[in-house]
Amino acid sequence: MEKPKRLSGILCPVITPFNSNLDPDADRLIRQCQWLLSQNVGLAVFGTNSEANSLSVNEKIDLLERLVDAGLDTNRMMPGTGCSAFTDTVTLTACATNLGCAGTLMLPPFYYKNVSDDGLYASFAEVIERVGDDALRIYLYHIPPIAHVGFSLDLIERLITAYPNTVVGIKDSSGDWENTRSILDRQWNDFRVFVGSESFLLANMRNGGVGCISATANINPAAIDRLYCNWQSDQAEALQQALDEIRDTMMAYPMIPALKATIAAFSADDAWCRVRPPLVQLGTVQRASLLSALHAKGFRIVGLS
Amino acid sequence: MEKPKRLSGILCPVITPFNSNLDPDADRLIRQCQWLLSQNVGLAVFGTNSEANSLSVNEKIDLLERLVDAGLDTNRMMPGTGCSAFTDTVTLTACATNLGCAGTLMLPPFYYKNVSDDGLYASFAEVIERVGDDALRIYLYHIPPIAHVGFSLDLIERLITAYPNTVVGIKDSSGDWENTRSILDRQWNDFRVFVGSESFLLANMRNGGVGCISATANINPAAIDRLYCNWQSDQAEALQQALDEIRDTMMAYPMIPALKATIAAFSADDAWCRVRPPLVQLGTVQRASLLSALHAKGFRIVGLS
Repeated sequence: MEKPKRLSGILCPVITPFNSNLDPDADRLIRQCQWLLSQNVGLAVFGTNSEANSLSVNEKIDLLERLVDAGLDTNRMMPGTGCSAFTDTVTLTACATNLGCAGTLMLPPFYYKNVSDDGLYASFAEVIERVGDDALRIYLYHIPPIAHVGFSLDLIERLITAYPNTVVGIKDSSGDWENTRSILDRQWNDFRVFVGSESFLLANMRNGGVGCISATANINPAAIDRLYCNWQSDQAEALQQALDEIRDTMMAYPMIPALKATIAAFSADDAWCRVRPPLVQLGTVQRASLLSALHAKGFRIVGLS
Repeated sequence: MEKPKRLSGILCPVITPFNSNLDPDADRLIRQCQWLLSQNVGLAVFGTNSEANSLSVNEKIDLLERLVDAGLDTNRMMPGTGCSAFTDTVTLTACATNLGCAGTLMLPPFYYKNVSDDGLYASFAEVIERVGDDALRIYLYHIPPIAHVGFSLDLIERLITAYPNTVVGIKDSSGDWENTRSILDRQWNDFRVFVGSESFLLANMRNGGVGCISATANINPAAIDRLYCNWQSDQAEALQQALDEIRDTMMAYPMIPALKATIAAFSADDAWCRVRPPLVQLGTVQRASLLSALHAKGFRIVGLS
């Protein structure tokens, strides 16, 4: 089998639809993933915005098998597989790799805080050795505002040095461009740097990055991909500014419920509003206010089934 | 079956021993639990200090079944069952309740941050309704320094009001005596308040609390229980001071590896030193320094097998 290529471009941490009993709704998720692929956006399912850490390992495995069975392109898939317990991370990562996913997006173990780089290194080494598959490709998921555990430059370099064909990229959701720049400045061989917000997409591309994996790719995939495809054009600054306006509108609300409310409205399917606790869906006033703000920006979603 | 009594006294978040392949070592855990019970200390297995969030749900279920099969007293058991995904919390809590455990110590869902009281309330309500067992007894686990998600007084009151026979107590590991005092001041009907550090044990008992659930109960159970049994005596201040000295000695090191190194040394069994990543066991210099500091305090462990 051909070795999987390293990923680039725009990927979406796909929001997870739930049935009325709060079970994951595989059929709706499949349709949403098909639509995202039609917009040239890859599938970073089981991200933070997917409520991945409100799903059990078995729920994630069942969903991933359904996506692959439905014929979705595994070359565009980078499921989140990092759990608090490395034994869970091994189980989920092995599943994703066996199913042929081109990459996995891996949170560090996130319950214990103030852990050392040695401990985090040992955790990743344990996962890599136990999965024991040449096809495994790990993108490190750095999101200190939520995980409160992250990756130092030294730790990244240790992992790349030890596992150069396995640890192949990072999603930087620090929200701190200086951190992203410091990663890019290291110029590790073909190390793929994704920003976690499209606000930094143009800057990332201009400095050697490869794309972004962003919440708002759930609702604004075509426009984000357009900047990715045209970052060297005269239009780039204007495209970036247009993305920022939509993002700023969304950021005035709790992001995950706001994404779901937006998809629910534009697909005329209220089932999309459901979230798992501890999240709470938008109230009717908040929802109306959000949609009004989006309409005022001339926001549209194209091709949503 | 008789309704379980509410718990009080000293409980221990029992450290989890691992085999050389890092699998949980049920036999060593059973022996340790037997020793703790012999010291009049209850079993809050799967706490933070148990590396519970470095274990999968199935690993915890297997261990709990082994403990119960070994005949350990379920009336003294309060396993930690709170996971990031409520579906996991339901699975583990139902298991503990079915096995007859007198209580469960429940973390809030801890991945998503800045969640609302409404969302946390919904999460606990979902767990309680799905477990659907009159025998379920929940002790809320408030540990904001690590979980970064916690319980407001309003949230506690809402849960007690809705589920007065289920939500029956709290472990306050905020490290903030003013927070504990504000809980005690509410004087909710027979609501059991444990402090998460024996440093606050005497203060807790004097203000209506019922005991503590503390890391150092792993190594100093008899002395902590002695203060609990004698908090109204003339000796109480001196007993508290002696506990504080041992705690302060331990706090100079990473707590979980330090507890394990201490048990390893006093039981002449180096297997106890093993931790799961992302934790790292003490180095030889640190270990020697810790043991030397404990010896200098005249520290001994009684009856350890």
